[in-house]
Amino acid sequence: MAGRVCGSPLGLSSVLLAPVLVLAVLLAPPALGRGGRGNGDWDAAAQLPPLPPREDAARVARFVAHICDWGALATLSTVPAVRGRPFANVFSLSDGPPGAGSGVPYFYLSPLQLSVGDLQDNPYATLTMSLAQTDFCRKHGYDPQSPLCAHIMLSGSVAKVNETETDFAKHALFVRHPEMKTWPSDHNWFFAKLNITNIWVLDYYGGAKIVTPEEYFKVTFQ
Amino acid sequence: MAGRVCGSPLGLSSVLLAPVLVLAVLLAPPALGRGGRGNGDWDAAAQLPPLPPREDAARVARFVAHICDWGALATLSTVPAVRGRPFANVFSLSDGPPGAGSGVPYFYLSPLQLSVGDLQDNPYATLTMSLAQTDFCRKHGYDPQSPLCAHIMLSGSVAKVNETETDFAKHALFVRHPEMKTWPSDHNWFFAKLNITNIWVLDYYGGAKIVTPEEYFKVTFQ
Repeated sequence: MAGRVCGSPLGLSSVLLAPVLVLAVLLAPPALGRGGRGNGDWDAAAQLPPLPPREDAARVARFVAHICDWGALATLSTVPAVRGRPFANVFSLSDGPPGAGSGVPYFYLSPLQLSVGDLQDNPYATLTMSLAQTDFCRKHGYDPQSPLCAHIMLSGSVAKVNETETDFAKHALFVRHPEMKTWPSDHNWFFAKLNITNIWVLDYYGGAKIVTPEEYFKVTFQ
Repeated sequence: MAGRVCGSPLGLSSVLLAPVLVLAVLLAPPALGRGGRGNGDWDAAAQLPPLPPREDAARVARFVAHICDWGALATLSTVPAVRGRPFANVFSLSDGPPGAGSGVPYFYLSPLQLSVGDLQDNPYATLTMSLAQTDFCRKHGYDPQSPLCAHIMLSGSVAKVNETETDFAKHALFVRHPEMKTWPSDHNWFFAKLNITNIWVLDYYGGAKIVTPEEYFKVTFQ
């Protein structure tokens, strides 16, 4: 029988679930989705900026980190069934409002989410983001595993954002993920960020390129 | 200075790279990309099948595992800079030809890829796939982190495919990733699969649902 983990106040037994699901869908407010035109949803707006020159790996990394509004985060699992094993989960993120990316991936997390318990035990994590998440690779005919379909891996540690950074993190996330404003307050959402220590860029043949955080953060966009 | 890891025979110093890049792009054969219409590239064909009922988590998991043609794989890193830490990387995959998914994610891997060295040391891994990779969530206005934007986590171990399964794995992958047929033979590509032991499905409010491999593999599609 299907089970349920990481229960929230909305948790119900699966026996009772079906009619409730139907009712909830009928009563649910309209989804707000992504920010849409002008708010960093480049695919929907069909205005994805051009990829920087591939030989400038730091710039490509910053481009991917800004264009993508979600990524997959690897953590060391604390879930008993797979404790100590690598785990992967999907998170929305933003490194800044459209056109003003900082390079720092910000998250809006809840202790109720899978992976967040892992991070409380061990903050080390790797985030991967790929242009396969956008229309770029499809439009150019690049397979998601082709190095031409640029993707990046950012390793580091995930930490709560401090007070001075909260306003930026909140604006960065809410402008690109307006639905977040409506998420239930009893989930204890908090702002977090990845403190990046290691960067790999796969954007061309010849293997992943290593970019230092210094090279990455000194990139500026006009 | 940007470095380079996991070098292939195509590796060149960054000083020499720029003019070679331009020449290589000009001379490169046309990209083959994904399989296109009729081959499981549902977005391009604008024919994404309907999501199964959300209360049937096993069916939703099989749906996501079949619809997605790539995912993010978490491994335990063997790269010295982040040894023992969780790592995430992007891989193309296929669980079968369109309409004939097996539920088993198959990969086409090379020892030259980041993560593949990790797997040789420790085969435990978690694969995550999300409908955020398709047009589904955007079309319905679901944020990538909303549970309504269904995503799954499949934990297990990655192993080379044995001889009897090779034909299925090869067909499953090549029909949806035709570009793979042209990848350089000196990269020692091999077919692999995820032997699934644990499954989590996030497809509705109330937390992730646990599906057993038995429930997952007994799902049939018409």
